[in-house]
Amino acid sequence: MPTDEQQIRDLVQQWMAATKAGDTQTVLSLMTDDVLFLIPGRPPMTKAEFASLSAAQPKSGAPQIDGLSEIQEIKVLGDWAFMWSKLRMEIRPPGIIEPMVRAGHTLSILKKQNGQWLLARDANMLVPVK
Amino acid sequence: MPTDEQQIRDLVQQWMAATKAGDTQTVLSLMTDDVLFLIPGRPPMTKAEFASLSAAQPKSGAPQIDGLSEIQEIKVLGDWAFMWSKLRMEIRPPGIIEPMVRAGHTLSILKKQNGQWLLARDANMLVPVK
Repeated sequence: MPTDEQQIRDLVQQWMAATKAGDTQTVLSLMTDDVLFLIPGRPPMTKAEFASLSAAQPKSGAPQIDGLSEIQEIKVLGDWAFMWSKLRMEIRPPGIIEPMVRAGHTLSILKKQNGQWLLARDANMLVPVK
Repeated sequence: MPTDEQQIRDLVQQWMAATKAGDTQTVLSLMTDDVLFLIPGRPPMTKAEFASLSAAQPKSGAPQIDGLSEIQEIKVLGDWAFMWSKLRMEIRPPGIIEPMVRAGHTLSILKKQNGQWLLARDANMLVPVK
């Protein structure tokens, strides 16, 4: 049985792989129903908003999203945990060669539900990189 | 004895009041030694960096900083807690009437040490407001 810390690392890997594959259903299965994404300059984003933003992307015209997450700290507190990471996202709309790059830190709260770790709160401090 | 949640609310009030009063020593006493401030577009800021930035402000020429924090959620997990808030900061350099305003959300990790709640990790997603 992998440790909680290893299960959280696996969750991040699964999230990144599903995002890259455009597999929204899998990404949605990795978050709690009451998840909140805190992002500069906009109201907190709910799971329903995350889903509808993803659904608005036509499959054929969806941007290719490639992320590299370097986990800096994981602290497990029973059925909850917090984690902060260095994250770099490359977003390449179809037909565009030069990707849009965003980089920075995230601070996340995770919750273990029915034996599975899920993302519950996420603070995203990424900024555009030239 | 106030509940942990009330003690965390008191910590936020104390932080805001000390910041407004320019009382850096009190602000520093409200954070753990290994605190990290995660801010868009720069490396994580340590307690030593926070202290030296505050010390760089001449007392007479320090900007007046007035903050309004509206706590949205506090979740206590034993000797740890997380909290997210709506925060609005008005920063008024000496001689300037129109303040610089920054607003947005914060996601914070708190730790109880020797019976006192302290800030341990802080994600700051404030953006300038026109």
